[in-house]
Amino acid sequence: MEPDLIQNSQVHHNNIEEFGPKFKKLRITDNVRELQTVLRDKSTSRGDFIFFADRLIRLVVEEGLNQLPYRTSKVTTPTGQVYDGLRYEKGNCGVSIMRSGEAMEQGLRDCCRSIRIGKILIQSDEDTHEAKIVYAKLPPDIADRKVLLMYPIMSTGNTVVKACTILKDHKVREENIILLNLFTTPQAVHLVLNKFPEVTILTSEVHPVAPNHFGQKYFGTE
Amino acid sequence: MEPDLIQNSQVHHNNIEEFGPKFKKLRITDNVRELQTVLRDKSTSRGDFIFFADRLIRLVVEEGLNQLPYRTSKVTTPTGQVYDGLRYEKGNCGVSIMRSGEAMEQGLRDCCRSIRIGKILIQSDEDTHEAKIVYAKLPPDIADRKVLLMYPIMSTGNTVVKACTILKDHKVREENIILLNLFTTPQAVHLVLNKFPEVTILTSEVHPVAPNHFGQKYFGTE
Amino acid sequence: MEPDLIQNSQVHHNNIEEFGPKFKKLRITDNVRELQTVLRDKSTSRGDFIFFADRLIRLVVEEGLNQLPYRTSKVTTPTGQVYDGLRYEKGNCGVSIMRSGEAMEQGLRDCCRSIRIGKILIQSDEDTHEAKIVYAKLPPDIADRKVLLMYPIMSTGNTVVKACTILKDHKVREENIILLNLFTTPQAVHLVLNKFPEVTILTSEVHPVAPNHFGQKYFGTE
Amino acid sequence: MEPDLIQNSQVHHNNIEEFGPKFKKLRITDNVRELQTVLRDKSTSRGDFIFFADRLIRLVVEEGLNQLPYRTSKVTTPTGQVYDGLRYEKGNCGVSIMRSGEAMEQGLRDCCRSIRIGKILIQSDEDTHEAKIVYAKLPPDIADRKVLLMYPIMSTGNTVVKACTILKDHKVREENIILLNLFTTPQAVHLVLNKFPEVTILTSEVHPVAPNHFGQKYFGTE
Repeated sequence: MEPDLIQNSQVHHNNIEEFGPKFKKLRITDNVRELQTVLRDKSTSRGDFIFFADRLIRLVVEEGLNQLPYRTSKVTTPTGQVYDGLRYEKGNCGVSIMRSGEAMEQGLRDCCRSIRIGKILIQSDEDTHEAKIVYAKLPPDIADRKVLLMYPIMSTGNTVVKACTILKDHKVREENIILLNLFTTPQAVHLVLNKFPEVTILTSEVHPVAPNHFGQKYFGTE
Repeated sequence: MEPDLIQNSQVHHNNIEEFGPKFKKLRITDNVRELQTVLRDKSTSRGDFIFFADRLIRLVVEEGLNQLPYRTSKVTTPTGQVYDGLRYEKGNCGVSIMRSGEAMEQGLRDCCRSIRIGKILIQSDEDTHEAKIVYAKLPPDIADRKVLLMYPIMSTGNTVVKACTILKDHKVREENIILLNLFTTPQAVHLVLNKFPEVTILTSEVHPVAPNHFGQKYFGTE
Repeated sequence: MEPDLIQNSQVHHNNIEEFGPKFKKLRITDNVRELQTVLRDKSTSRGDFIFFADRLIRLVVEEGLNQLPYRTSKVTTPTGQVYDGLRYEKGNCGVSIMRSGEAMEQGLRDCCRSIRIGKILIQSDEDTHEAKIVYAKLPPDIADRKVLLMYPIMSTGNTVVKACTILKDHKVREENIILLNLFTTPQAVHLVLNKFPEVTILTSEVHPVAPNHFGQKYFGTE
Repeated sequence: MEPDLIQNSQVHHNNIEEFGPKFKKLRITDNVRELQTVLRDKSTSRGDFIFFADRLIRLVVEEGLNQLPYRTSKVTTPTGQVYDGLRYEKGNCGVSIMRSGEAMEQGLRDCCRSIRIGKILIQSDEDTHEAKIVYAKLPPDIADRKVLLMYPIMSTGNTVVKACTILKDHKVREENIILLNLFTTPQAVHLVLNKFPEVTILTSEVHPVAPNHFGQKYFGTE
């Protein structure tokens, strides 16, 4: 009967069944849970917050790359054997949703050195509260690319829905959008997948309470 | 009938059953297989080799941290909820086996900023071919610590056996040794676990052919 | 008689006398000139461009920190001596001007782990061509802080003038603004210092031709 | 009358005149003095020590690159101008002297992505106290290369003298050795330059008291 206790245990179950096959969750290990714990803790210093956030981001990015197309590739080893491997296809890009999504850019670059990284700024209209696009800088020929859309915290899902709309307006195919996310509420997942059932969502935690202090703490701005 | 073809597929099966519960393998994803492929390919440039090796090392280190003890930890979030999390226990250290193990030090430091990192140098006696310890620099009170032993390529397993002997001579408990490895042969796993059944081995690939060019390519020395 | 030859030699002279005491230039070494050369060269790959840009940014950031206030600080060494040193005062922040200024954020963070980093987006009005502020996210109490304003390429100087206006609107004192810049035209320096004679400008090169492809090449977007 | 006060001011003078033209010192700015202060302070945490050491190392490495040969190089800019630049010659390598010199390897790699990095281990004979080489792993064809020799703290200079002897035994030309150092005593400079007058020494501070805790603090081992 502790209504404030976040029941971590109960959210580690069958999200995939609940949300369908386009929903992916990072494998939850003790290590990942520590990263999540530090990021949830209000007493974490900004230096530690950034360090641990960067680690969780890196894990989500590495996992996100598994959603991209690979082809088999036979290579020759230094001792002359043929090794039956895989190579990653060209034709991907990243797009961060400002402001918090920008925290994920370096992690993406640390895995994909010269990936193109676009950016979208969405703001709520003060009168209508409608999400409006303010700014978009996207890679050329984005229509032909897979898009790793970066946004670490989903609370309502409205911002991501708007971002996906913008991408589709730029002729990106819905199934080519992969959302890289750290924390999301269940309703945000439902909203995004209702609107865009072909979008892939990758997260590390589904929880009714989103850590909305993320961007403010990471960047130190209001 | 291609005797030189490295049968990647067949090595991705039941290693755990084969080697027992102290043997752990990184979850093999397309992404991990790409990293392995680039590292196997003799045509990979040194710059790329280092970049991809560092990524695979990072994944092995992050996974290796799961072998360390954690305790539950309730933290308070910025919105006043209690979050039921985990924290990592103090009292760990890293030890690299020269020379190739040193390539893993930065990856460990990137995950554990101020972890103590010791070092062991083992060389074969020119006459007897016996592995001999030449140099060891270890953290104080290593006897009370968990040890992340770093050695990326195991071919015979002799060097790791010698390193474990040195650690035990320093009163490290066998069950406190966790070997972080990238590529190993099956016989090396058998040798190490025969001699030290309580040591944990984490690797990304078990394969009869070890990429013995690793250290030479990573550091550019003979 | 080569009108297209950029006369590097002639721009390495008395800029300080020309622009007054608030203008600072990175000490030009062979190493810095190599970085500049790679960034100027149209045949540079994106991977190399990012790598070399990050190095030049790092040097400008380290030099920029010299513009911040330090106090003397006596510390005790491990052998019991008193060492007569310096420590950096608290109360600084970074502000990047989108989009290209964002390329400098990681370099700043690599030197100042938990510095707060704000952001300003300025765009030209399509009708009036006037620079307009679209977005600003600034640290709280910025009025009391020194501001490392990040913008790598200055061509006309209009964007930086607008950014300084915004900062002054937020009660930042003009003498507390330090512009970190990689390449600038002489007219941009004149414009900024005419409007804001107390602003400090730090650059690595003053040249009539600004490498305006910087942001596009760094991020890979149009 | 404070005999223990390290007279920082008096060591920032004419070292170059004192030690001759092969001795180079990093330009001493407030920023560099802060880095030195943090490294001298016994109350600095290991995490901070590593972070500040890495920054000072990076500055020494960037400055050290100026000791390497460059050639002029005309490049074409994206707007079609010819830019009169410089490029760095191939044929360099790094060699770290264990153990403390290894702390400088990552900094070198962060500036020169695929530079070959060799290693030398020297120990004192327990009976004769003579410096003896225990281990050396050097790049092939080192005789044809410039060598960035890495050793952060010079107290007596004996270890560096031994390392230079080893390099010369491998046919490295004396004038091709550039020592990258953070802190040195005056007598160490004299010893090295007496024995090897063509070696270049680059440091950030000459001081009678060397911070000999460096390696122990950086790596956390005894």
